[in-house]
Amino acid sequence: MRLSEIIEILNLDLDPKKYNLNIEITKINSLENGKNGELSFLENSNYFKYLNSSLISAVLISEKDIKKVPKHIIPLISENPYIDLARISKYFTTSLEISEDKRVDEVVGKYSNIAKNVFLGSSVVIGNNVTIMHNSYVGDNVKIGDNSIIYPNVTIYKETIVGKNVIIHSATVIGSDGFGFATTNSGEHIKIYQNGNVIIEDSVEIGSNTSIDRAVFNSTIIRKGVKIDNLVQIAHNCDIGEGTLLAAQVGIAGSTKLGRNVVMGGQSAAVGHIVIAPFTTITGKAGVTKSITTSGKFWSGYPLFEHKKWLKFQAKISQLFSKR
Amino acid sequence: MRLSEIIEILNLDLDPKKYNLNIEITKINSLENGKNGELSFLENSNYFKYLNSSLISAVLISEKDIKKVPKHIIPLISENPYIDLARISKYFTTSLEISEDKRVDEVVGKYSNIAKNVFLGSSVVIGNNVTIMHNSYVGDNVKIGDNSIIYPNVTIYKETIVGKNVIIHSATVIGSDGFGFATTNSGEHIKIYQNGNVIIEDSVEIGSNTSIDRAVFNSTIIRKGVKIDNLVQIAHNCDIGEGTLLAAQVGIAGSTKLGRNVVMGGQSAAVGHIVIAPFTTITGKAGVTKSITTSGKFWSGYPLFEHKKWLKFQAKISQLFSKR
Amino acid sequence: MRLSEIIEILNLDLDPKKYNLNIEITKINSLENGKNGELSFLENSNYFKYLNSSLISAVLISEKDIKKVPKHIIPLISENPYIDLARISKYFTTSLEISEDKRVDEVVGKYSNIAKNVFLGSSVVIGNNVTIMHNSYVGDNVKIGDNSIIYPNVTIYKETIVGKNVIIHSATVIGSDGFGFATTNSGEHIKIYQNGNVIIEDSVEIGSNTSIDRAVFNSTIIRKGVKIDNLVQIAHNCDIGEGTLLAAQVGIAGSTKLGRNVVMGGQSAAVGHIVIAPFTTITGKAGVTKSITTSGKFWSGYPLFEHKKWLKFQAKISQLFSKR
Repeated sequence: MRLSEIIEILNLDLDPKKYNLNIEITKINSLENGKNGELSFLENSNYFKYLNSSLISAVLISEKDIKKVPKHIIPLISENPYIDLARISKYFTTSLEISEDKRVDEVVGKYSNIAKNVFLGSSVVIGNNVTIMHNSYVGDNVKIGDNSIIYPNVTIYKETIVGKNVIIHSATVIGSDGFGFATTNSGEHIKIYQNGNVIIEDSVEIGSNTSIDRAVFNSTIIRKGVKIDNLVQIAHNCDIGEGTLLAAQVGIAGSTKLGRNVVMGGQSAAVGHIVIAPFTTITGKAGVTKSITTSGKFWSGYPLFEHKKWLKFQAKISQLFSKR
Repeated sequence: MRLSEIIEILNLDLDPKKYNLNIEITKINSLENGKNGELSFLENSNYFKYLNSSLISAVLISEKDIKKVPKHIIPLISENPYIDLARISKYFTTSLEISEDKRVDEVVGKYSNIAKNVFLGSSVVIGNNVTIMHNSYVGDNVKIGDNSIIYPNVTIYKETIVGKNVIIHSATVIGSDGFGFATTNSGEHIKIYQNGNVIIEDSVEIGSNTSIDRAVFNSTIIRKGVKIDNLVQIAHNCDIGEGTLLAAQVGIAGSTKLGRNVVMGGQSAAVGHIVIAPFTTITGKAGVTKSITTSGKFWSGYPLFEHKKWLKFQAKISQLFSKR
Repeated sequence: MRLSEIIEILNLDLDPKKYNLNIEITKINSLENGKNGELSFLENSNYFKYLNSSLISAVLISEKDIKKVPKHIIPLISENPYIDLARISKYFTTSLEISEDKRVDEVVGKYSNIAKNVFLGSSVVIGNNVTIMHNSYVGDNVKIGDNSIIYPNVTIYKETIVGKNVIIHSATVIGSDGFGFATTNSGEHIKIYQNGNVIIEDSVEIGSNTSIDRAVFNSTIIRKGVKIDNLVQIAHNCDIGEGTLLAAQVGIAGSTKLGRNVVMGGQSAAVGHIVIAPFTTITGKAGVTKSITTSGKFWSGYPLFEHKKWLKFQAKISQLFSKR
């Protein structure tokens, strides 16, 4: 949509003589990843550092910060940039696949079996030797690579990309909306439409009743050879490194990035916006609240300790207790 | 059913001359909420206080407690009131929607899209501009308000009420039976039929693979503007206050009541039968075991501490540990 | 398949004059449970004790351990027995039910209601008075006993056995693959095909969004009268004792065996390969990491303490903390 329309919807005040309001805004994006023709926002001072080198065309920003905006970016002065981002985000979402199972324009490779009652949205592309079982749902523009198996009652939301040799078990949901809201002073939560997607690379296996949310912008990524157990939560914009193993009931909050061959035990979790180094092992029920930057270590507990220290700590606790 | 039938089924001993056994019992209910024509039970002495003012017509009660029953309530003397309640509860459940997708008497508003393979039970009422996607299930007597979106493979059990502008993501289940059993001395668990329902108010969003159980009596309530993430458990008879946010994998046990704008972090939980004050924040993995009565505070850990104390406690642990 | 084919697929070196390579291998199994005509593997020295009395016909084993193999078992020398087991496991899996809903050879008892859009695989046997609701999936060779109720959108994988008077709530998955992989030195995970099944005995109730995985060999067993809440994870080869209660979001790792009438509170968990004695109670959020051999006790926390000790420990923590 045109920048002039955005300004009108958000009821912003911008001098049409000073800026070209006819430019087309094609996407909302972060400052770091945004490109020409895209809109971003700035509210948290941690992100100022990305402003100068950002390729975006316009930014929602508070009046007090306007001097920091470089010349190539149009500043959209907003009393609450994050809430205005939420309000405009719904205009950048594609429509729901509410129509009947069309089966008019999908491409299905050789030797593939699509069971009865499977929904195929428009422009779906399915490779060779793919199995999709009873009642599963494959939204618009989804791609599924060769030899993949989708068990019954799986839901794959629109725009998801699934690689080759992938297995997805029943009742798992790929691409549901990330949990993103901007909260007003009165406590109302404005939905930030989740306009990204999920990319699942080759040779991934995903258990039953697992949820992997679509990205708010860009992609949630599950890399090659990752194996995910049942009832696992992977939030929007996570990046799960090659060969990582996530046991049952693990939860990973938004934008967290795991290196390759990380192992997380059952019911362990990681907060959002952190990095976990390659070859890290997190034992069951542990909680990771800060980035782990040294690779190959073994961690336990909540708060998190290196496993050996945690064992000593447990011994100390027992000892302390036994005095009484 | 008539009181005389209940007495016969449970094989109770009651003088037909002393009491009117012809009265119609329409529902099982708690002492607090029960009305005229309803049956309750009393086993736990904490509930004696509700007996005198209760509007119910009959109560299952131990012989030793019979003198506490006021004149307007008929006492049904039972060796095990809770087990007898369980045994009679199944006679108050409505039948399952086992029939074919009838699509004979539902009311569907303007501009609503009900996808292929969606099951609509009898007497369903759907507002205007509602979207219900592939393979979802809408049980008997369910109501869904204007502009709501039900994603694919959602299950909405009978009698659920869904407000306007509600979004429910895939594989989520609304209205499954609460986890309620009366256990005999021999260790057998007798099902307490869950005859209540779920009410979801306006502008609620619910993620994927979440379970919200129907009430045993009356309603489990999700109030206006609540946002619930993926893989969340809300047990029977919970009441989730307006604008509350529940992150992924949160669990809330039965009959717990959250005030408005509570925030619970990922994998946190609350035990049953407690109250959490408005504007309370519970951080990830924390466990709430007692009511929180002061509003606006920030809590962490299991056992639970105020967040600042918890941080100090963590520091103390580290210090203790580092001595070795 | 013939032993000679296995040797060819795995590229093993075995003298055809010394051993009869024409024998038929019908199954992969553990050393303890294996029978004549079955293949096993030995990598972990804890299992040597089972080797002499094992009834299996052949074993994948390292060259260094070959002298421990008794004469009645053919040793298949492998550089990595576990990875070779994984590589051969897929040849012992039955095919997926990819075909259309056949409804040609199933047996359905009297008064049973199978809703529209329910998938019935081949050779399904359903008892009398069974209800299977909208969109549920019943794989090949599944058996369901009298009076059982399967709610909508349930997935029951092939070969599952369901007893009488069983209730399974929506979006629950029975028989998905256990989480089993053999990892190569380069960090690649080779799938161990899960060729066992799930057995659910009479009078079991299972909540919504729960996952119970099929066994790698033999059966995952849920015994008579067990009641399982929502969002529970039961891994491959678990054995859940009669009358056990598992509250919401409990997780039990592979091969763990619970005695009768165990109670596990919400979000509690047990590691794999342990035993929990009958009548044990585990409170919410607790983590069991070692076998519990004395029955009837009450346990809390992670690490686990006896409940009374845990309460004292909590008091001690508070006291320690309050000094500051």
